[in-house]
Amino acid sequence: MTISLDQARTIVDAALAHGTAQGFNPLTVAVLDPGGAVVALARQDGSGFLRPDLATAKASGVLALGMTNRAIAARAADSPEFFTSVANLAGGKILSVPGGVFVRDAEGTLLGAVGVTGDLSLNDEAAAVAGIEAAGLVAVTGAEQ
Amino acid sequence: MTISLDQARTIVDAALAHGTAQGFNPLTVAVLDPGGAVVALARQDGSGFLRPDLATAKASGVLALGMTNRAIAARAADSPEFFTSVANLAGGKILSVPGGVFVRDAEGTLLGAVGVTGDLSLNDEAAAVAGIEAAGLVAVTGAEQ
Amino acid sequence: MTISLDQARTIVDAALAHGTAQGFNPLTVAVLDPGGAVVALARQDGSGFLRPDLATAKASGVLALGMTNRAIAARAADSPEFFTSVANLAGGKILSVPGGVFVRDAEGTLLGAVGVTGDLSLNDEAAAVAGIEAAGLVAVTGAEQ
Amino acid sequence: MTISLDQARTIVDAALAHGTAQGFNPLTVAVLDPGGAVVALARQDGSGFLRPDLATAKASGVLALGMTNRAIAARAADSPEFFTSVANLAGGKILSVPGGVFVRDAEGTLLGAVGVTGDLSLNDEAAAVAGIEAAGLVAVTGAEQ
Repeated sequence: MTISLDQARTIVDAALAHGTAQGFNPLTVAVLDPGGAVVALARQDGSGFLRPDLATAKASGVLALGMTNRAIAARAADSPEFFTSVANLAGGKILSVPGGVFVRDAEGTLLGAVGVTGDLSLNDEAAAVAGIEAAGLVAVTGAEQ
Repeated sequence: MTISLDQARTIVDAALAHGTAQGFNPLTVAVLDPGGAVVALARQDGSGFLRPDLATAKASGVLALGMTNRAIAARAADSPEFFTSVANLAGGKILSVPGGVFVRDAEGTLLGAVGVTGDLSLNDEAAAVAGIEAAGLVAVTGAEQ
Repeated sequence: MTISLDQARTIVDAALAHGTAQGFNPLTVAVLDPGGAVVALARQDGSGFLRPDLATAKASGVLALGMTNRAIAARAADSPEFFTSVANLAGGKILSVPGGVFVRDAEGTLLGAVGVTGDLSLNDEAAAVAGIEAAGLVAVTGAEQ
Repeated sequence: MTISLDQARTIVDAALAHGTAQGFNPLTVAVLDPGGAVVALARQDGSGFLRPDLATAKASGVLALGMTNRAIAARAADSPEFFTSVANLAGGKILSVPGGVFVRDAEGTLLGAVGVTGDLSLNDEAAAVAGIEAAGLVAVTGAEQ
């Protein structure tokens, strides 16, 4: 199973709306399928040109390892060389700061992941969660653990 | 000047709607700013995983050189090594088949480019043009020449 | 909107003249458009061969993230892995030391960025600011914050 | 010996002026020292974002091999695999079309090379030669051979 474009667009729109309502910096939101390919992406006006790559990397990294950003950060603290190797293998597409959030359906099936960047990491993450919940899906950040 | 997210989303939605109405294969649409960074991207369900990269490359290549896909194809026919060098310098982000279309406003100012992939190249291009025109903007494919 | 070649050349000449007048080491100045592509670059005699890349990276990095070098340095202090990932995604084109300065017009529109390298970072930055102001434009370093 | 910034700037200005006077497309001019590092670069308004890399590659390639673009083209025709390997080793920074021109002084000493891109290759080359001669230096294109 994989996230549909309709679901992805709902997530993107709701995440951006959350950011706007909260007065965040311009955000960029990427929704990826479980294989790491982008399904939908949107960059708010005024965002830096690397933000699409950052948003994609936040989502790609958690899917690549099957680990939340917080878990990746904990591993990196334990072993910086682990992170260096993985970052290399992933072509840079991995980030250890919040903002990459797994998307599951009500049965717990993995549908993909969402990456948000542009404001403080915890705000990015909140926007991602808002977007996922607006689509009626389940957000997994690792903060639940 | 640069294309706004609102304009980009209108283009994406209209291009995809054109493809659906015409019975095309699932399409992927990318809208880029003049510097080559993605503003909006959507991949229809059932598309292969490299389609986002292909759509992005179609738009990025025309912006990188300031030449339409048809013009790039003509140069490549003249000099295959030229294309090889440019493709290298562009990190692979260049395609010589139709589907990458410049976006200009009514005054002729370049706002960005749209890349579409998924069906026959000329159909991809038609979807891009439909999207751009739905946003009230001007599409430049090189076919006008 | 984007910085013109005339503006870029004025910035380059004035930044280099500032360095010469102040007795700095030989400087290299790069002026980039908002998408990160070079508009003008000059390397003073006696500069090392990587200086063009450094000057370009100072300007490119601030545009890529929409963050000043000082803000990038603060994020890197918080999370070294964040910097590692971003540096990877940016192809190395990011620096966390002063010398990359945003260029805006009187209305606040982003026109591009200037990167200077060759002397102490704060001197590099001062040369960039002198160049931007000589062109009648607004320099944003992050030191204003 | 190496080209000075003053000489490089004269070359850039005169090459661009030649293009403007002749009604060429917007040009990008790069002047490199014998080691391949940029000394001066300027991109005329309206040029695609990859043009700085193309101009640099035209000059870099001839310096890298010590062969004019025409000689490189002849080798590539003989052995496409040779060109592929070299292009790979040079990170893509090699082009086999006219526009990269050696710069020598009156005694024949190599000072660097100029790369021009933006119009037809032979026009690019003519602009490079005009720039070099305006600086009182000697241009070597391979067409003399």
